[in-house]
Amino acid sequence: MVTLYHHPLCAQSRFVRLLLAEYGIEPQLIEENTYERRREFLALDPAGQTPVLIDPPDLVVPGAGAIAEYFDETRGQGLGKHRLLPDDPTARVEVRRLVDWFNRKFFDEVTSFLVTEKVLKRYMSREQGGGAPDTDLVRAARSNIRTHIRYIGYLAGRRKWLAGSSLSHADLAAAAQLSCVDFLGDVPWDENEPAKVWYARMKSRPSFRPLLADTLPGLTAAPVYADLDF
Amino acid sequence: MVTLYHHPLCAQSRFVRLLLAEYGIEPQLIEENTYERRREFLALDPAGQTPVLIDPPDLVVPGAGAIAEYFDETRGQGLGKHRLLPDDPTARVEVRRLVDWFNRKFFDEVTSFLVTEKVLKRYMSREQGGGAPDTDLVRAARSNIRTHIRYIGYLAGRRKWLAGSSLSHADLAAAAQLSCVDFLGDVPWDENEPAKVWYARMKSRPSFRPLLADTLPGLTAAPVYADLDF
Repeated sequence: MVTLYHHPLCAQSRFVRLLLAEYGIEPQLIEENTYERRREFLALDPAGQTPVLIDPPDLVVPGAGAIAEYFDETRGQGLGKHRLLPDDPTARVEVRRLVDWFNRKFFDEVTSFLVTEKVLKRYMSREQGGGAPDTDLVRAARSNIRTHIRYIGYLAGRRKWLAGSSLSHADLAAAAQLSCVDFLGDVPWDENEPAKVWYARMKSRPSFRPLLADTLPGLTAAPVYADLDF
Repeated sequence: MVTLYHHPLCAQSRFVRLLLAEYGIEPQLIEENTYERRREFLALDPAGQTPVLIDPPDLVVPGAGAIAEYFDETRGQGLGKHRLLPDDPTARVEVRRLVDWFNRKFFDEVTSFLVTEKVLKRYMSREQGGGAPDTDLVRAARSNIRTHIRYIGYLAGRRKWLAGSSLSHADLAAAAQLSCVDFLGDVPWDENEPAKVWYARMKSRPSFRPLLADTLPGLTAAPVYADLDF
């Protein structure tokens, strides 16, 4: 059984959870608070970041990008015409461009600020960087997301899925980031109809269901979060 | 002819320049100052970051990761046993883990601080974020690099190349980051002999030569930079 070290509000972990579910794989989930810098976790992957996947018996695959490429290489053909990374190298460039866009750019400009300031800092000790949220960073993230929502709407208005005519890693990466922000109620859904329609399709997929059941102690998801008709 | 939008001290661009040289490809280089946010460059890639590669006639491949994967997919087999991403999926995991380590972690903790504070801020206007270097960030980078040098030494002491028995993307990514820091004279070479020996091998490769000839207006490379017997 595949094991995944993750955190419920780690967007890159959510990307991998969606990916595994699209492959029909249900992983054993181990929740990891990376700010604790747990010795056993650092021994698995010195970078100390979630997600880290263990493919039995003992292959350690760290990082959302490496995990996605590894599953495509070892099991991608098995998905047939539903393969999540296209066969054509040119089309793969577009998928990888967008995966990078969401896993890095969207994360750095939006998700990381919101999740760290509004959630993680509650659970962290002072030495770990905990404390009151920096409201300037929260405000910056809420401003930055508006550009990203427009860009998702732009893509979704011109293509069936974000990177082209098939569901791909790009849709999973975008939906994973958005789902974290949506948990916190910070997605301005009214601002872009095509983006909202695309996300509603993603949210209705069976692969999405486990994410919608996520909880954190002392934290309630925004009312829209698990609503398929948000 | 392949065209590469790059900056001489953009480490990810240097990774691609090394990669292309290992493939025997000499690109047309176009220098891009991303902080200018030039409209024509943003039209090529809305993320607005170097490197961006154009493969004729008109395929735009943005980002070091996507470029490396694209070249492996379209030309990797042509390198035969010198292929830069191994055939075996398990070995590819290790290469990608280290590429991510250097292109993201090393970059975020070391190269980005040093290049931005010591170099780019000289050329940027006040509106672009220019000004005096933040000496706290420079100090942090000089402290962080010591851990990275030890890690490179640890890997180089146990393997022929950083990810295993063959030269791979991992060596190119590591050498590209280090070469930027070395240009600025901030690599503590005396602290780790295996790391130094590995870098000396990298620096002696023909693919490295064009990087050693790089110049920036008003800026002189550190004396060790182009010295093969540093």
